[in-house]
Amino acid sequence: MPEFSQSELIQAFSSLVDEGKCLSDADSLETYGCDWTRFYTPAPSLVLLPKTTEQVQAIVKKANELDTALVPSGGRTGLSGGAVAKNGEIVIALDAMNQILDFDAASRTVSCQAGVVTEQLQHYAQEQDLFYPVDFASSGSSQIGGNIATNAGGIKVIRYGMTRQWVSGLTVVTGTGEVLELNNGLMKNATGYDLRHLFIGSEGTLGFITEAKIQLARQPSDLSVLVLGVPDFDAIMNVLKTFQKAMDLTAFEFFSHVAMQHVLDHGVPAPFDTQSAFYTLIEYENISDHTLDEVMALFETCMEEGWVEDGVISQNETQAQNLWQLRERISESITPYTPYKNDISTTIGHVKSMVEEIDAQVNEHYPEFEIVWFGHIGDGNMHLNILKPESLSTEDFKARCENVSEWVYATVEKYQGSISAEHGVGLLKKEYLQYSRSEAEIQLMRQIKQVFDPKGIMNPGKVI
Amino acid sequence: MPEFSQSELIQAFSSLVDEGKCLSDADSLETYGCDWTRFYTPAPSLVLLPKTTEQVQAIVKKANELDTALVPSGGRTGLSGGAVAKNGEIVIALDAMNQILDFDAASRTVSCQAGVVTEQLQHYAQEQDLFYPVDFASSGSSQIGGNIATNAGGIKVIRYGMTRQWVSGLTVVTGTGEVLELNNGLMKNATGYDLRHLFIGSEGTLGFITEAKIQLARQPSDLSVLVLGVPDFDAIMNVLKTFQKAMDLTAFEFFSHVAMQHVLDHGVPAPFDTQSAFYTLIEYENISDHTLDEVMALFETCMEEGWVEDGVISQNETQAQNLWQLRERISESITPYTPYKNDISTTIGHVKSMVEEIDAQVNEHYPEFEIVWFGHIGDGNMHLNILKPESLSTEDFKARCENVSEWVYATVEKYQGSISAEHGVGLLKKEYLQYSRSEAEIQLMRQIKQVFDPKGIMNPGKVI
Repeated sequence: MPEFSQSELIQAFSSLVDEGKCLSDADSLETYGCDWTRFYTPAPSLVLLPKTTEQVQAIVKKANELDTALVPSGGRTGLSGGAVAKNGEIVIALDAMNQILDFDAASRTVSCQAGVVTEQLQHYAQEQDLFYPVDFASSGSSQIGGNIATNAGGIKVIRYGMTRQWVSGLTVVTGTGEVLELNNGLMKNATGYDLRHLFIGSEGTLGFITEAKIQLARQPSDLSVLVLGVPDFDAIMNVLKTFQKAMDLTAFEFFSHVAMQHVLDHGVPAPFDTQSAFYTLIEYENISDHTLDEVMALFETCMEEGWVEDGVISQNETQAQNLWQLRERISESITPYTPYKNDISTTIGHVKSMVEEIDAQVNEHYPEFEIVWFGHIGDGNMHLNILKPESLSTEDFKARCENVSEWVYATVEKYQGSISAEHGVGLLKKEYLQYSRSEAEIQLMRQIKQVFDPKGIMNPGKVI
Repeated sequence: MPEFSQSELIQAFSSLVDEGKCLSDADSLETYGCDWTRFYTPAPSLVLLPKTTEQVQAIVKKANELDTALVPSGGRTGLSGGAVAKNGEIVIALDAMNQILDFDAASRTVSCQAGVVTEQLQHYAQEQDLFYPVDFASSGSSQIGGNIATNAGGIKVIRYGMTRQWVSGLTVVTGTGEVLELNNGLMKNATGYDLRHLFIGSEGTLGFITEAKIQLARQPSDLSVLVLGVPDFDAIMNVLKTFQKAMDLTAFEFFSHVAMQHVLDHGVPAPFDTQSAFYTLIEYENISDHTLDEVMALFETCMEEGWVEDGVISQNETQAQNLWQLRERISESITPYTPYKNDISTTIGHVKSMVEEIDAQVNEHYPEFEIVWFGHIGDGNMHLNILKPESLSTEDFKARCENVSEWVYATVEKYQGSISAEHGVGLLKKEYLQYSRSEAEIQLMRQIKQVFDPKGIMNPGKVI
């Protein structure tokens, strides 16, 4: 790609956005050039903040003309470097496209710009007495366009699926500057290839998502939370099966005793005195006055079978929220230990073997490493965290963790799992993609990219 | 494409399948060369019945070598000619690939070959005390591979979505003979473009679907059915909104008074005496002892508001089944009238205008035509049927219906709807595709087809 000076780029692009929406100061370049992945040095040339699909289109056309690389940027909460600009690219941040455009009550569909923050959409849904069910730790800053570009998951997937399931329409600008209106909010549309689903999860490599039509769900009735102490993986699976057969759970989370210890040390109160090897957090909807009785009966079955060692159930919303802290505050409680993080998945039946084999390999080679497991076990998605021993330098720790990554991905491959369950590939996992996707698939992805972005200006170097 | 004699083709292909699985007699050619669309004269060269993915792969490779067109064939229940072979193609029927391969209880996933019949899968799910929720009139003969290739919908979409939602893995053979294992049954997998979703709904134009991993759902508790007489479209929408806010409906169907008359004439007993302009059939799950009370309260609200004129609720499963007949037997009750059929959708809020405008145009030009509307109004999907007046010849009727199609598709386009909500494009709607997809989209679809099937051997002439 040709090299342009910053001032040449400003001259070419600044008139394509509103006044004040072309940023070139060092602070802005640093802020907009990275996401929550902290391994890369941001180095974009310019930041543009378009306000409309037409402005995005004009930018893409100009970029094609000049052969300039573009990096789409949402809430920059990604953990795989998908929104990192480290090679002089122009960052196109969707922050100024943050309007909710329309609400169709009959089909329970919101039309919004891609820069709408997830939480903003959740609140908007609530105001309509409806529910946007995709929820995760970064929903206060992540944007809906970014969620779609990475097919974000989170804590309610077991009941509500991924972001994909809630997108009934997309406005996109392809890498050639073509504007496409995909699926128009239809629930049923059998008219050829569903290009909407190709853009979902494409991490900005095919084009820009500028607007979306999002389906909303019925508001769940009041939710209760159950935290259970469980002796082993087989028991976890039996508990899952027992509950899932009787009701639609809204969450089935898991964390190890090590994780629990860190959260308790962090000041979250213990749910009960019994210490178990593992804990599960189950959330369910109180769909009737009988739900509690049903849940108590299931709990007793699990106790009798020896699958559960102790348990507690929330009596009100505050207690439910407090129990959720046991799961939700794990990440922050281990942050001081500079954790190595990985986000992997397999089918539920393989989770046990996958976790045990990774444990065994890490323990064998690095017995001083503390391993913290937690995650969305109801979807087969586990977050692996390894804490840096205090005595080890960050550099040495990182070097050893590269070995860990190799073991992790080889184990994932063995169980036909995913090297990135919900965080995307971006820059961070690109070189490991072949553990989850075959060479033939990767080749086809490259050819599809070529169709939508023949000049390769869209988020170059990401994913494939 | 080069012309080969039948005996040359037999020589080239028959050894690639098991003995007796290469059919060339006139009866087989006729049977396997068409689907439920009766407008085309079947004229395939040969029928092959492979038993494994490897056999399919060998066939595709040979077809690439010889430049022979292949038509994938499932249960042949399609209504758009997607599985029609009318130009000497080789039909590859999946009938012999009808094995359920594996069941993973932990993730509630069935692995099966593409030729498994929908009903077979439904029964299998039931035996596991689980539920395969995609259901429609042809489920006794349609095959799971065909359902996936057309992203089949049906009567439970409002609650359970389309076939797409239940496919967690696919084995496909691309147009170049490459075998791909897509998504491996994972619930979460953020590793680049989801090629699985590209194959879902591709109507055999990218390659063969040979195996699938299908998620199963919890068995619903006992289902009740409510049939209501409703004065107008606005009332239907209000009824939908009222019920949907309170509970997850498993069906919300609609039919006009004209449709009801035909079903009653066909021998199905009337639900009540009151005659209304429209009727809705609502199905819901009795999730607790209170559900009935709740439903009765909603019903009363609707009566008080004037949205409902009369209604009946099933007291047991038999009554529920009988009420379903009012909706399910419409098609057969109008078959003697050689109906013109169309399957269209829009967003729910636009259904009223779309239906009324189509009615007005047909009534203006052909006042002698009887129009029968029914469908999955909860998804915005309407089936339009126009009955041939006895006095009109079939030929004249068909000619006039071509005009009707133009009005229908123009109206669909006006409301950004779909010219094929759930039946696919195939041959029948190919020339109308531009009413639902832009020229740019169609061009991109062609290029994607080119990536997977550069020689154009896969189901040529279909969709695009």
